[in-house]
Amino acid sequence: MADYRAPLDDMRFTLTEIADMGAVNALPGYGEATPDLVDAVLEEAGKFGSDVLAPLNHTGDQEGCVLENGVVRTPKGFPDAYQQFFQGGWNAIWAPEEWGGQGLPVALATAVSEVWHAANLSFALCPMLTQSGIELLLSHGSDEINAIYLEKLVTGQWTGTMNLTEPQAGSDLARIRCKAERTADGGYAVRGQKIFISHGEHDMAENIVHMVLARSPDGPEGIKGLSLFVVPKFLPDGDGNPGARNDLRCVSLEHKMGMHASPTAVMSYGDDGGATAFLIGEENRGIEYMFIMMNAARLAVGMEGVGIAERAYQQARDFAKERVQSRAITGGAEPVSIIHHPDVRRMLLAMRVQTEAIRAIAYRVAAAADTARRHSDADVKARAQGFVDLMTPVAKAFSTDTASEVADIGIQVHGGMGYIEETGAAQHARDIRVTRIYEGTNGIQANDLVGRKVARDDGRNARALAVEIRATLDDVKDSDLADLSAPLEQAAEALESATDWVVETFPGDPAAVAAGAAHYLRLMGVVSGGWLLTLGALRASRRKAAGDSDPFLEQKLVSARFFADQYLPQAAALKTTILQGGGTVTGVSPDAF
Amino acid sequence: MADYRAPLDDMRFTLTEIADMGAVNALPGYGEATPDLVDAVLEEAGKFGSDVLAPLNHTGDQEGCVLENGVVRTPKGFPDAYQQFFQGGWNAIWAPEEWGGQGLPVALATAVSEVWHAANLSFALCPMLTQSGIELLLSHGSDEINAIYLEKLVTGQWTGTMNLTEPQAGSDLARIRCKAERTADGGYAVRGQKIFISHGEHDMAENIVHMVLARSPDGPEGIKGLSLFVVPKFLPDGDGNPGARNDLRCVSLEHKMGMHASPTAVMSYGDDGGATAFLIGEENRGIEYMFIMMNAARLAVGMEGVGIAERAYQQARDFAKERVQSRAITGGAEPVSIIHHPDVRRMLLAMRVQTEAIRAIAYRVAAAADTARRHSDADVKARAQGFVDLMTPVAKAFSTDTASEVADIGIQVHGGMGYIEETGAAQHARDIRVTRIYEGTNGIQANDLVGRKVARDDGRNARALAVEIRATLDDVKDSDLADLSAPLEQAAEALESATDWVVETFPGDPAAVAAGAAHYLRLMGVVSGGWLLTLGALRASRRKAAGDSDPFLEQKLVSARFFADQYLPQAAALKTTILQGGGTVTGVSPDAF
Repeated sequence: MADYRAPLDDMRFTLTEIADMGAVNALPGYGEATPDLVDAVLEEAGKFGSDVLAPLNHTGDQEGCVLENGVVRTPKGFPDAYQQFFQGGWNAIWAPEEWGGQGLPVALATAVSEVWHAANLSFALCPMLTQSGIELLLSHGSDEINAIYLEKLVTGQWTGTMNLTEPQAGSDLARIRCKAERTADGGYAVRGQKIFISHGEHDMAENIVHMVLARSPDGPEGIKGLSLFVVPKFLPDGDGNPGARNDLRCVSLEHKMGMHASPTAVMSYGDDGGATAFLIGEENRGIEYMFIMMNAARLAVGMEGVGIAERAYQQARDFAKERVQSRAITGGAEPVSIIHHPDVRRMLLAMRVQTEAIRAIAYRVAAAADTARRHSDADVKARAQGFVDLMTPVAKAFSTDTASEVADIGIQVHGGMGYIEETGAAQHARDIRVTRIYEGTNGIQANDLVGRKVARDDGRNARALAVEIRATLDDVKDSDLADLSAPLEQAAEALESATDWVVETFPGDPAAVAAGAAHYLRLMGVVSGGWLLTLGALRASRRKAAGDSDPFLEQKLVSARFFADQYLPQAAALKTTILQGGGTVTGVSPDAF
Repeated sequence: MADYRAPLDDMRFTLTEIADMGAVNALPGYGEATPDLVDAVLEEAGKFGSDVLAPLNHTGDQEGCVLENGVVRTPKGFPDAYQQFFQGGWNAIWAPEEWGGQGLPVALATAVSEVWHAANLSFALCPMLTQSGIELLLSHGSDEINAIYLEKLVTGQWTGTMNLTEPQAGSDLARIRCKAERTADGGYAVRGQKIFISHGEHDMAENIVHMVLARSPDGPEGIKGLSLFVVPKFLPDGDGNPGARNDLRCVSLEHKMGMHASPTAVMSYGDDGGATAFLIGEENRGIEYMFIMMNAARLAVGMEGVGIAERAYQQARDFAKERVQSRAITGGAEPVSIIHHPDVRRMLLAMRVQTEAIRAIAYRVAAAADTARRHSDADVKARAQGFVDLMTPVAKAFSTDTASEVADIGIQVHGGMGYIEETGAAQHARDIRVTRIYEGTNGIQANDLVGRKVARDDGRNARALAVEIRATLDDVKDSDLADLSAPLEQAAEALESATDWVVETFPGDPAAVAAGAAHYLRLMGVVSGGWLLTLGALRASRRKAAGDSDPFLEQKLVSARFFADQYLPQAAALKTTILQGGGTVTGVSPDAF
């Protein structure tokens, strides 16, 4: 099993040069997040990831979770690692200090989360879902609820879950049947079944706080009749400690393709009359609140992609450096390590560079989220929020699609050994596969992008992105990297044309746009990745010119060029396909299949 | 678990219109393979696949194989299904009648094999490997060996294996250590360990005939010192029945990502002195003979891709027609089955049309193999063989890469259910993954294509392909499908330029070509797929014009158009990347990773 080491060089570079961590540090309330502190936090996180979480990754996959008499046993070492994790203060470093957090920037917390996902995706899913619950309570929890739950969730003493899906209600939440009724004492009781509840039951923390989407007592039909409730596993007693068992239970665990160490529960609420539930915010606004959790979670899922892509890359790289097989195509008497073979090196670069691209996108979005929250200038705030809104589906879907591809290449680099589970390469591909499905499938992300994020505001945010890309292009043309400008410019033009077409076409023919939505999302991902890697190359080049002799800077020049050669040319093809308007898709009757 | 039905409509259409089965039927010795017989064989195969093999696919995956005291137990139902399979005469319908085969064309046998792979990939791997052994003995087996083994292998009473890989010798067979020594009686004894031996031990047949590549007694180093041996599990007695146990055993089984019902054995030969072995052909020509097995096996692996892609498509289609979720983007009060959503329909078309493309390539190559074997005109024979040589790596690698993508999309169509193993969608993706690795990784195929198949003959075969494509283009331009010509022509031009570049560049800078070899292979696959689907559309259109009212013909028009919209535009991007010459790949030192 390969070791994992946090890629501190690229994490720091991306934070500093691409996400502009200096500007984040200058935001009100983030003065503590100096370069020294950022370094120290990343380094400590890296150690914890390598030493505590990474060694449990493969064993967790092999062992899986077991449900016995309503109790879920996670794999050996997981409960102990979780205790170390939350007691080390790692759970929600971005959360406000008044609730037990460290008040650090989202950008830094995002970079740190990469380490957890890379080290152990199954493990890290548990705190990731807790984060969403924290976001939710911070925005809409009542003082009463927050006083009881928020600090426990922020520290990670208790964990959180999201309960949305039911057998008949996946992407379509309007079909939710789980129902809340008013109780005699003026509270609520929830009844019904939820499926696909990650960490819905486990043995890693003393209490589990379920955020449950259920039909309001007298709410209208459809999504407008849904409310959100806090439904704890153990009802807190007067001292805020876990007290009486609530009327909910884990009925079964799913047998999944991957993420074996993360229990995916079928949850039943109210078998004995009703699970005691506490309303979040107001009735019938559940969907609205849910999207708060969702948006944070979507960026977090994107980080799962970045983490696993990095892990898969490191493992394939180490293998390719060690495995000796065949002579070099350029000659020589002796067989060489396979990293010398051009096709293997291409695969490794494809893994590394695509990982850097999705890291760049994710960190940049996270930094924009900080700006959107904290900047003193309302215009700057609004622009940053526009970027976050636009890029959230891209950061989720492009990142996880890319990570799946990277993990798949990782198997290929290993040859026959890649297919053998002991190697661990296959696990990354199996684990990451679900990230393209949950928190809104990548198809849902694509529809969200073309509909809500591009067409609805007449392409304003998409055009603001184009302006930023053009600004980088101008800088590149004036630099010693001018040869990087042509591929990026052609790709940017493809995105601009496709955006115009989406904006013009959507109102009259939304189906034609939806038929190419996945391609449009990929186009935006490819162009954004190329843009940010080019920006990185520019910054690296400037640092070199200024006398910085760090050899890592050379890597960023290679990455931009490789991406320009291998991925940016796809933009024109994607545009062509999008602009066909999906006639062959929408024109075929479902009965013809 | 979804049912599987052989796609007889498209199988027949592809055989008839794209592989020109009529011309195959006219070849010497294939007179029996009339349209009626072809129909009857396909229909019967379809029934056997659906009724006997398909129901064991999921249970086989869940149950897996077990090794106990040197005996491998395959999953419940497998031994019985195998007995039905070989007793039904299905094992090697292409093999000569004198050896117990039916002497049917390779094209028909190839189409039939699609059914076995689709129905149960793990099961079908066993007869697939037997075929390779038959090919080998037909070409180089001595009369003595053939008299004992060939009919048993042709009927499938005994099964065959290929023993190449050792821990230190994967793609690099020069590193084989397994050794043959001459025995006192003038025979051979083999000693050593082989890994990744599919069906190296099992309980489905009464004997297993291992084809073992081993170092000759006094052979030179490297691949020129390797010989091929027949090493049976049970030494045939005087009546040709399984007799004494040979000195070989299965040491362990691998735990794999998929193909759980196919035992992958570590085999140990000669622990008690030496396994009795029989030389095939001459000493030190093992590699040459091995490639005979390999080439047939590579097309067969391509068929594994076609089969699983079809199966994954059928399952996703059936799910998408049943699963109701969300209202249509075009309006309506009620939620609809998800096949109505444009992105889902795009995914289904991507699955179906890509499957049709790889089927078209595979059947066409198989028909060319028949022509190369049987045609009376030496020039026609040679041209056909040139096409087979050129396209074998494409039929293997493009097909399996595509099938992996198709199976992956199949998971996505299922949403959350796709990640749950009970659904069966994940199994297809796990099972098919190995086909991109074994029988020469797809990277090896790409290197084979650019080096041996294109550069070595100065692009002659590749240009002959271009001429064929141009001929179809001329016909299309003169037809009512003229709008299909522009995308195909642009794609064909991209392939032609890339071919010129490969031919010019390879002699001086093979590494630059190798760096883009995988892209070149994909380019040839995409263009060939687009070409054959366009040819199919042309034939469908002519049949419609001639009064044929089969509604299936409409599907072939849609397929060509969809492929032209969605895949042919990639050709230009691939060409751009290839022509960059891989400078960013070969220019980066292995130490920089």
